[in-house]
Amino acid sequence: MKTDWIAVDWGTSHLRAWAIQGTAVSDHAQSDKGMARVGPDGFQAALLELISDWISGGPVDVIACGMVGARQGWVEAPYSTVPSDPLPDVPIRVPDTDPRIRAFVIPGLKQLTPPDVMRGEETQIAGFLGARQNWDGVICLPGTHTKWVQVSAGEVVSFRTFMTGELFDLLCGQSVLRHSVGRGWDDTAFVDAVADTLSKPEQLAARLFGLRAADLLQGEDKGTARARLSGLLIGAELAATRPYWLGQQLAIIGAEGVSQTYATALQLQGAFVETANATEATLAGLALARNMTRQTA
Amino acid sequence: MKTDWIAVDWGTSHLRAWAIQGTAVSDHAQSDKGMARVGPDGFQAALLELISDWISGGPVDVIACGMVGARQGWVEAPYSTVPSDPLPDVPIRVPDTDPRIRAFVIPGLKQLTPPDVMRGEETQIAGFLGARQNWDGVICLPGTHTKWVQVSAGEVVSFRTFMTGELFDLLCGQSVLRHSVGRGWDDTAFVDAVADTLSKPEQLAARLFGLRAADLLQGEDKGTARARLSGLLIGAELAATRPYWLGQQLAIIGAEGVSQTYATALQLQGAFVETANATEATLAGLALARNMTRQTA
Repeated sequence: MKTDWIAVDWGTSHLRAWAIQGTAVSDHAQSDKGMARVGPDGFQAALLELISDWISGGPVDVIACGMVGARQGWVEAPYSTVPSDPLPDVPIRVPDTDPRIRAFVIPGLKQLTPPDVMRGEETQIAGFLGARQNWDGVICLPGTHTKWVQVSAGEVVSFRTFMTGELFDLLCGQSVLRHSVGRGWDDTAFVDAVADTLSKPEQLAARLFGLRAADLLQGEDKGTARARLSGLLIGAELAATRPYWLGQQLAIIGAEGVSQTYATALQLQGAFVETANATEATLAGLALARNMTRQTA
Repeated sequence: MKTDWIAVDWGTSHLRAWAIQGTAVSDHAQSDKGMARVGPDGFQAALLELISDWISGGPVDVIACGMVGARQGWVEAPYSTVPSDPLPDVPIRVPDTDPRIRAFVIPGLKQLTPPDVMRGEETQIAGFLGARQNWDGVICLPGTHTKWVQVSAGEVVSFRTFMTGELFDLLCGQSVLRHSVGRGWDDTAFVDAVADTLSKPEQLAARLFGLRAADLLQGEDKGTARARLSGLLIGAELAATRPYWLGQQLAIIGAEGVSQTYATALQLQGAFVETANATEATLAGLALARNMTRQTA
């Protein structure tokens, strides 16, 4: 079966590839060979490991988004500056590839003031907007580095990045809280914690140690502590992003679990939230980028 | 030369011991065998490694403070509950020690609402207050877990712990910011960053990623980024502790570098700050605790 083209999402810690026939996914493969685990000369080999079965029929287009376009990536795809269409420029062709592929990398977006950058999310935003004529509003893309993105007239107007996900992982895994946070969840604890730092965001660092103290003095359940930690961090983020979500049309694009967590927190504040599947948005955005490469070929 | 007694500060990551003759330090030794690196049966051996030269003359009193009194420590020294004298109870005797020592561990303090704990700082507070009749005010003890302590009429009335130091270490060493933060310092960047999160503490998680973006887009100096990171975290802490320091008599007990950093930030807000040497406070507090063990012997 002939593969028409190959969609690739290549981040810091993951590599995912999809074989596309027409508009349908015919196969899927992934590995942990993200940017952080691939040396400067290892990109093509890491990709071929996953896709070699799909490219026997001759040169197949590969369209990739994510950190793979960074300066230390496969090819540098320089940022476009906002305000901007999420995919303003034709993807950058990777030079000197294996003859069985023609590989392209999608540029990220940068904001000059305040300084901010994204790589990968622009593709999801393009895919999300592609299915919605005249959608204006704010898109939240939760993850290791959560993005809040203001969209108007098809353009990314401005955005802000929050290290909430990375802080959660570091605090759970590396800090003194690792002794007090474990598996499980408690919705009430999450909701209370969101309300707490949303109204008093400056108390975050004290509330964090409070999780440890509550464990030592009261033997608090480790799943409850996990929900509370998540709520404290997301509450502080919602305090900072209030101008983004208050009274705005709002969409969340992300993995199901974290999207639902953000949606719960936002709905409690009276926000109306639409959630969109991250993989679908990525594939739709990569398809748009692929069409751009064909129009200029 | 006869050692009268041995002072010990035993935290999570360090073990420090001082040989005392009369009221003077006659020798000093330290190792990295903190709580985190000593198994349940390893405490006495880790200590004897350092002090064996000092105890040939027969049973010598050892007075220890810090995490060594935790449940997983050498002997559990249960917390006293605030409001309380910083050293309300006689230190706990360690059972079945080597006959050359009689070892005692100082209890920590706990607060029930909001839950909080300290181990080691109570000894520094006692030492600090011992030299100051009728001192009322607020003591800040910066470190991995910075404590803010309200003192009145010789008692610890309340306290709050902030994970500021641990967050700084994790962000510098483990997060995406490790690529953008390095050696060096910039006073102006520190001062600006303190002012920034002191007035807008909710922006902390966004400002953090801004350090990475400023490096990528503007090639910001890594020492400047380090000062800015420190300022952002301390500014957010000062926003939370405003009721502690605004218009209060204020003392900082800590290592010289971090104490000066906090003092700079507080003086910029118009606070009058006294700084006290942490080691001197620890030794003075351990001496007070030693007197308690002798009065009950």
